[in-house]
Amino acid sequence: MDSASPELGIAVIGYSFMGKAHSNGWRNISAFYPGGPAVSQRVIVGRDRERVDAAARQYGWQESATDWRAVLERDDVDIVDICTPGHLHEEIALAALAAGKHVLLEKPLANTLDEARGLAAAAATAQRDGVRSMVAFNYRRVPALALARELIAEGAIGEVREVRAAYLQDWLADERAPMTWRLRQEQAGSGVLGDLGSHLVDLLRFLLGQEVQRVTGQLRTFVASRLGEDGPEEVTVDDVAWAWLGLSDGAEASIEVSRMAFGRKNGQSLEIYGSRGALSFDLERLNELWVDEGKGPRRTLVTEADHPYLFAWWPPGHVLGWDTTFTIQAAEFVQAIAEERDPSPSFADGLRVQGVLDAVVRSNDLRRTVVIDDLV
Amino acid sequence: MDSASPELGIAVIGYSFMGKAHSNGWRNISAFYPGGPAVSQRVIVGRDRERVDAAARQYGWQESATDWRAVLERDDVDIVDICTPGHLHEEIALAALAAGKHVLLEKPLANTLDEARGLAAAAATAQRDGVRSMVAFNYRRVPALALARELIAEGAIGEVREVRAAYLQDWLADERAPMTWRLRQEQAGSGVLGDLGSHLVDLLRFLLGQEVQRVTGQLRTFVASRLGEDGPEEVTVDDVAWAWLGLSDGAEASIEVSRMAFGRKNGQSLEIYGSRGALSFDLERLNELWVDEGKGPRRTLVTEADHPYLFAWWPPGHVLGWDTTFTIQAAEFVQAIAEERDPSPSFADGLRVQGVLDAVVRSNDLRRTVVIDDLV
Amino acid sequence: MDSASPELGIAVIGYSFMGKAHSNGWRNISAFYPGGPAVSQRVIVGRDRERVDAAARQYGWQESATDWRAVLERDDVDIVDICTPGHLHEEIALAALAAGKHVLLEKPLANTLDEARGLAAAAATAQRDGVRSMVAFNYRRVPALALARELIAEGAIGEVREVRAAYLQDWLADERAPMTWRLRQEQAGSGVLGDLGSHLVDLLRFLLGQEVQRVTGQLRTFVASRLGEDGPEEVTVDDVAWAWLGLSDGAEASIEVSRMAFGRKNGQSLEIYGSRGALSFDLERLNELWVDEGKGPRRTLVTEADHPYLFAWWPPGHVLGWDTTFTIQAAEFVQAIAEERDPSPSFADGLRVQGVLDAVVRSNDLRRTVVIDDLV
Amino acid sequence: MDSASPELGIAVIGYSFMGKAHSNGWRNISAFYPGGPAVSQRVIVGRDRERVDAAARQYGWQESATDWRAVLERDDVDIVDICTPGHLHEEIALAALAAGKHVLLEKPLANTLDEARGLAAAAATAQRDGVRSMVAFNYRRVPALALARELIAEGAIGEVREVRAAYLQDWLADERAPMTWRLRQEQAGSGVLGDLGSHLVDLLRFLLGQEVQRVTGQLRTFVASRLGEDGPEEVTVDDVAWAWLGLSDGAEASIEVSRMAFGRKNGQSLEIYGSRGALSFDLERLNELWVDEGKGPRRTLVTEADHPYLFAWWPPGHVLGWDTTFTIQAAEFVQAIAEERDPSPSFADGLRVQGVLDAVVRSNDLRRTVVIDDLV
Repeated sequence: MDSASPELGIAVIGYSFMGKAHSNGWRNISAFYPGGPAVSQRVIVGRDRERVDAAARQYGWQESATDWRAVLERDDVDIVDICTPGHLHEEIALAALAAGKHVLLEKPLANTLDEARGLAAAAATAQRDGVRSMVAFNYRRVPALALARELIAEGAIGEVREVRAAYLQDWLADERAPMTWRLRQEQAGSGVLGDLGSHLVDLLRFLLGQEVQRVTGQLRTFVASRLGEDGPEEVTVDDVAWAWLGLSDGAEASIEVSRMAFGRKNGQSLEIYGSRGALSFDLERLNELWVDEGKGPRRTLVTEADHPYLFAWWPPGHVLGWDTTFTIQAAEFVQAIAEERDPSPSFADGLRVQGVLDAVVRSNDLRRTVVIDDLV
Repeated sequence: MDSASPELGIAVIGYSFMGKAHSNGWRNISAFYPGGPAVSQRVIVGRDRERVDAAARQYGWQESATDWRAVLERDDVDIVDICTPGHLHEEIALAALAAGKHVLLEKPLANTLDEARGLAAAAATAQRDGVRSMVAFNYRRVPALALARELIAEGAIGEVREVRAAYLQDWLADERAPMTWRLRQEQAGSGVLGDLGSHLVDLLRFLLGQEVQRVTGQLRTFVASRLGEDGPEEVTVDDVAWAWLGLSDGAEASIEVSRMAFGRKNGQSLEIYGSRGALSFDLERLNELWVDEGKGPRRTLVTEADHPYLFAWWPPGHVLGWDTTFTIQAAEFVQAIAEERDPSPSFADGLRVQGVLDAVVRSNDLRRTVVIDDLV
Repeated sequence: MDSASPELGIAVIGYSFMGKAHSNGWRNISAFYPGGPAVSQRVIVGRDRERVDAAARQYGWQESATDWRAVLERDDVDIVDICTPGHLHEEIALAALAAGKHVLLEKPLANTLDEARGLAAAAATAQRDGVRSMVAFNYRRVPALALARELIAEGAIGEVREVRAAYLQDWLADERAPMTWRLRQEQAGSGVLGDLGSHLVDLLRFLLGQEVQRVTGQLRTFVASRLGEDGPEEVTVDDVAWAWLGLSDGAEASIEVSRMAFGRKNGQSLEIYGSRGALSFDLERLNELWVDEGKGPRRTLVTEADHPYLFAWWPPGHVLGWDTTFTIQAAEFVQAIAEERDPSPSFADGLRVQGVLDAVVRSNDLRRTVVIDDLV
Repeated sequence: MDSASPELGIAVIGYSFMGKAHSNGWRNISAFYPGGPAVSQRVIVGRDRERVDAAARQYGWQESATDWRAVLERDDVDIVDICTPGHLHEEIALAALAAGKHVLLEKPLANTLDEARGLAAAAATAQRDGVRSMVAFNYRRVPALALARELIAEGAIGEVREVRAAYLQDWLADERAPMTWRLRQEQAGSGVLGDLGSHLVDLLRFLLGQEVQRVTGQLRTFVASRLGEDGPEEVTVDDVAWAWLGLSDGAEASIEVSRMAFGRKNGQSLEIYGSRGALSFDLERLNELWVDEGKGPRRTLVTEADHPYLFAWWPPGHVLGWDTTFTIQAAEFVQAIAEERDPSPSFADGLRVQGVLDAVVRSNDLRRTVVIDDLV
């Protein structure tokens, strides 16, 4: 911390799961990235006065607030971190950018392709005035996946040809699991496709440095109706989604995402096969990257000081948790701000992901392969 | 062995990889299934006199021969075991059935759907005279997979919804790997789809007891030309194939088969998710079945005397090899003959598999989902 | 947080590895245990003014100090958390207890059995005035191990008979690794035995609820001399240690601890075999407990809200890191203080562990089995 | 097979578990080692006429016999393969050697050190007349372990320092498991120590090429009495055994063998730590060798044609079973005979192992470390 540099004031909007995870990042940033800019947890914003008060105390925020518009006007807030459900992303993010605040926005960028286009355009405009924006695809910050990206870029596995990816959960496997807003299209946008599929599409682009050009998709809702507060209610989003993606340099990826995969809690797995090697990864063992350079898969415990992001964490073998990704993400964002450069993934990246998800839906509706046109 | 019952005389046609594997089964059948009918390794048939002689000595056959038609006329041959490449299946199998020989036929049933229809019809006719026929889908004989089928049938994992299957090898990952007959459509019929995809389709039907009704497929050849004896030659079959299969009781399966998956030697893996449990399996650890009945995946070492097929093998934990499946397969076939019942999988089963493979190709060509009509 | 209850002021002594880890616990305690007493990170203490200043900023402490005696006199310090090397434990902890401060003391309790006896006696005396003390055996706080203890106590695996435990690291495997104070007996007390062996002995007592009564031990130094600042210097502690421990209810445990186990970074592993089941654990995959109740080992991902300590963390499958244990440890300590009960493990527990380590050394010297007499 | 060379006639004595496993080896030898000398399964010998007849038919022997002495006189028997319980080894093997027969003897060499000395002396004498003898330590023939030995000999992991080995089974974990002759010292010699411990001691010597010089041992019987045919009977052998072994070039090995390890069926595991690398192995996944040369453990699937023993087996990834070791063992023995060289492990090797087991018992009795003197 350079004592001359001013602190960056943070406001987070949302106090649920993602609000808690992002708060964890802001609270721990200085412990692991002591050389970076100082941050101050100014205010947490939520609709319920009592709950947002409790969240402020619990997660280390100096204040709480219920009116996000008022927060955008505060001079002591430099960064707005948006952790609300997707249908609120557009309104809040546009306002925050207009107010000149740097914006960190939880994924996916938006619920619809139109909204995503608008957000990307606004971010591009704001960027000209030095206002930074980033989408919170936190899995880019898993050290093992950041290492995977480096290895691929260095050519360690040759030309990537075939990717087999899945992200499997099981919280809907029980048909008695109740209705929630996440299963209504008007609020959630889509089901598992947007929720977990967006992560895989982002990771593909991140890891391979290729764009998706061709999409075949299939969606399926296994349990068509669930019990809501007023009786049975139709589920209007997908329980499981599949896609094959043709990428710009010739790789082919298959994707499967599910909320019905009995017994898989957070089962993100990636297998990447190249012409001279292979990589694999499983999020439930996120400290491990498996690398095959020709003599069998080798387990690398990605906990060394010279691994990505890890110069200031724990000794080798002292494994990291899932929440680590939010600390790293926060650090990356403020570092970019301090260095006056654009952070990654940008809203334009978020739009690219949205374009792929949209193509999956179209392919499913048409029952045929679709090509992705220019998005902007 | 009932000393009153006559021995069954066996002829095997083909002395390459599958000829060796099938011979291994015939040679060891009595050691592990002492109560079954006795068999006699009469004759092995191949085109090259010197090599078939060597094979006879090596694999324990009493005689060798180069003319399969002459062998079909021998009275001391009761069973004809066909291990030739696919384009010879039709001619030999039809002749063998016509000669009243029981026929064990290496998978896939045929190279084309038309050939498959003819073989299924001939088998149905022969069956009326007590002539038995079976397709050699050997992975049905992996004890762990036979146990999986039992568990699913008993309802241990509830209603099956989602299956994620792959069969990945890497012998074509190196672009310098040379041209072979397996990469020419006229001889091999198809590439990895017929070779490995047929196993997965058969296993799906076997494990779930459901038929495939809807197919979306994609094929890809990554290395379009390879060096043959006369210079570069076009590869006319698929290196990788993908399919989504809609099954008759509502399950959805995704399949990926590859010869380009760097580092995977014989990587057949299955994940089966039901409404109340899940199963998984990996052929490179074929003694293990993972069963999740609600508290996490449990590793069952399928080596107990009360596990399928294992009453006469080794003590618990003394693991079995891949070649075990051929011994069990041979035993199952002769047991069915002795009991005068039809063995499984029948040629009609083989035809069903062929229908699915054919639909994958059509879907790939059309770039859209296809429905499987009645096959016969 | 009850607004009526005063905050507990914390002072931590030491800013190295353990100081950082303990600070992490204090910083995050309220986020995950919001119902507990509030804490305030008052002051961090270290000898080097510049480094302790930096540590305060980095780890979230309000102040820094270089004189631990002065800190003990502060009224706004309620808890003293001692993270110094072992040879300083006795002096600081005795003074802190005498000053009426609650004491959290990094393991092992002391470098010698005599010091350990003195500390246990002082803690017992202080306890009569409501002053609490605890040894920081953080692995008791791994949720998977806390669950293992519950399962054993409930009889899930029957009577425990055989335990096979190891704690393997490799930072001395390279013979060119330099001399450090940790390899000098006068400062470190012992080598890997006290460092890692103490954890295993504590875990055995914790998990089984049995005392060690009989000890056979062996120590070995593979690299007898290492390069120090003034040239080669003799290593006076053990690189590897082994022990067999006879426990009070009849269990037998074998222990192996090493700093020479090439490739093992933090390889603590436990296998516990009972009369009706078995458990196993590996610290490099610390979210997983393997439970065998008769049908094979089952992987439990210990990330559910009803697992020990986890009611306020992340959703299932969102895995925890090693540093989690320090947050839980801190929460346990302040909860005990708030509830006016003695926390566990006590200094008496620390003394028991020390008695076992001492017996290992004696057994090694005598080359024979020794019996542990009454320690106090 | 050179048609000029005469077949080697085999007699096996014993038709139980080991008789079956050895028969499996003799039956399959020519399929996988076609270049080697031909063998003929002449006769199987057992006490029970009916059972030995059945065994002959089942396992492919031309004849059966009940009088092993008569078999030793047959001219058409060149090799005697002794698969009886240990207390019969001495008498039969001495007679076979005296009759000029090559002898393959199931491990351990003998029940007592005296018997072992006599057998080693007789083998040395017979060897002068070209009579070969070998102890059937079959795990030397696991391709993964043979590869491990090669890697160690080549220096791939540097100087071996620390070995952690176990062989864990659970067939006595249930206290209601009945009495058998294996639990009576007069018949079995010892319990798990001789049965499974002998394998580990042999493997240590095989893998490291070092001799055991110093031994600390501990034995334990957890269930002191079991139900026999005439009521409760005392168990007079060990259920669990532990040892630390000091080896001739400075390595230290810890060994744990058990019949009480709930859930472990055939759990032989080895971890070998050297100065520049590490190896590990698990018999329940016997096709896999894990090699760490500095960047993490790498899984080698030991199924390639250039791996030890595997030039004539199956394609890569087509995994081998436990019974493979007996085929390889038989092939190694006849190859040595054909090449007129002494096979390994010799009876002298068997005696070395016996010396270590004896020292474990003495150390347990004395409760102190013992040094192994010259054995012969």
